[in-house]
Amino acid sequence: MLKENERIDDLQVNDLKIIQQKDGFCFGIDAVLLSNFVTVKKGHIGADLGTGTGIIPILVAGKSEISSIKAIEIQKEVADMAKRSVELNSMEEKIEILNINLKEALEHIEPNSLNFVTSNPPYMHGQGLTNENEKKKISRHEIHCNLEDVISIASRLLMHNGSFFMVHRPTRLCDILTLGRKYKMEPKMLRFVHPKPSKAPNLVLVKFVKAAKPELKILDPLYVYKEDGTYDDEITRTYSIKKLGECIV
Amino acid sequence: MLKENERIDDLQVNDLKIIQQKDGFCFGIDAVLLSNFVTVKKGHIGADLGTGTGIIPILVAGKSEISSIKAIEIQKEVADMAKRSVELNSMEEKIEILNINLKEALEHIEPNSLNFVTSNPPYMHGQGLTNENEKKKISRHEIHCNLEDVISIASRLLMHNGSFFMVHRPTRLCDILTLGRKYKMEPKMLRFVHPKPSKAPNLVLVKFVKAAKPELKILDPLYVYKEDGTYDDEITRTYSIKKLGECIV
Repeated sequence: MLKENERIDDLQVNDLKIIQQKDGFCFGIDAVLLSNFVTVKKGHIGADLGTGTGIIPILVAGKSEISSIKAIEIQKEVADMAKRSVELNSMEEKIEILNINLKEALEHIEPNSLNFVTSNPPYMHGQGLTNENEKKKISRHEIHCNLEDVISIASRLLMHNGSFFMVHRPTRLCDILTLGRKYKMEPKMLRFVHPKPSKAPNLVLVKFVKAAKPELKILDPLYVYKEDGTYDDEITRTYSIKKLGECIV
Repeated sequence: MLKENERIDDLQVNDLKIIQQKDGFCFGIDAVLLSNFVTVKKGHIGADLGTGTGIIPILVAGKSEISSIKAIEIQKEVADMAKRSVELNSMEEKIEILNINLKEALEHIEPNSLNFVTSNPPYMHGQGLTNENEKKKISRHEIHCNLEDVISIASRLLMHNGSFFMVHRPTRLCDILTLGRKYKMEPKMLRFVHPKPSKAPNLVLVKFVKAAKPELKILDPLYVYKEDGTYDDEITRTYSIKKLGECIV
């Protein structure tokens, strides 16, 4: 089950586990926060664009009664690791890992068919690949896909009134909202994530609804730490994040 | 100087004063917060779109070394009150009140000429006028102008790299940012205002820069009250708001 340089981490919820690399490719708090921001119903079908370790489909499937998720990951080695995590959780009937570029999603998933889409896409503008740490680069920089690809593909996959849940950087908020409008994905809900109450947000959780009426709701802020440096009560209560290990940033 | 139903309020900063109505037309905390969000330099010229009591130009002119502001107000009676407040502060050489619809601004101000524009526009979609409290309605609802008018006029008035400072509701954030892009007004800075740290923001301060590169900075949040219901330290320190009287909401 495990390859060299890999370990199994306990996700501290519903006995879920995940395979990660000891140094290198691990999920971040953003994926965990996004999973908790997602609202899905029994029988729903969805997709995760750029799934990485598979953290989002595993958490969403493990905490809901959705029917299935197709999880797309372009990197062969990472997709293989995600596939073994799905097996580790006996979720093969719910989660299918597709080792493709998300721009090819429409060749594998019927257009206008999904209830929900999730994505924790690369945040940074592409800056060209170097050899060192290529996997981290691909997951963090817009090398194989950019924000417009992610939003336009999500829109084409979703049924009318389907929801797209995404986490991204607040510096890209203007791009996020204008691209949403461009592809008929109305931003309906935002939640800003602050390192602590006195700091500016460094993450934003966004819910778009396809073809919905304009009216944006901004939720109460989520603080990761209190001013004294301990985890905020909501974080401790909801995410059991203290025990998730050194991969959490 | 005063008409029936009017009073003079001390703005608690640099001996500035303002005329307001005893019941009815008063400025809100949003205008005060916007004035403090504005950054201007010596010799700058600007305009305020929908000036109401004149609170924004009076505070901005009173706390900076700008050259002049043209302040536009559509309501004759309100514009007259603002004009008397300008005289009360001996600011006739710096502030000119124009009793026009802001859509006519280009007939009175040269296009592409201003360093800065400010606006605390009506927040709510127009819902038709009734007789009762018409003045409040005009200042709160998009009856004589809407958000697109405000942003497009600001853009046409500003010089290249000029700044537009606006306060609005977070529910309109998507409209604000997409209309900014539409009129070449890049949103460069946002600051959310929360009633208290545990609550969602109910105001947003926005700085657009005409023809600037995309890159949005979200500032640390501004909390009006602490969780215990007393004013937040920044509010007390910066705004002397406790003494501003019952018009502050």
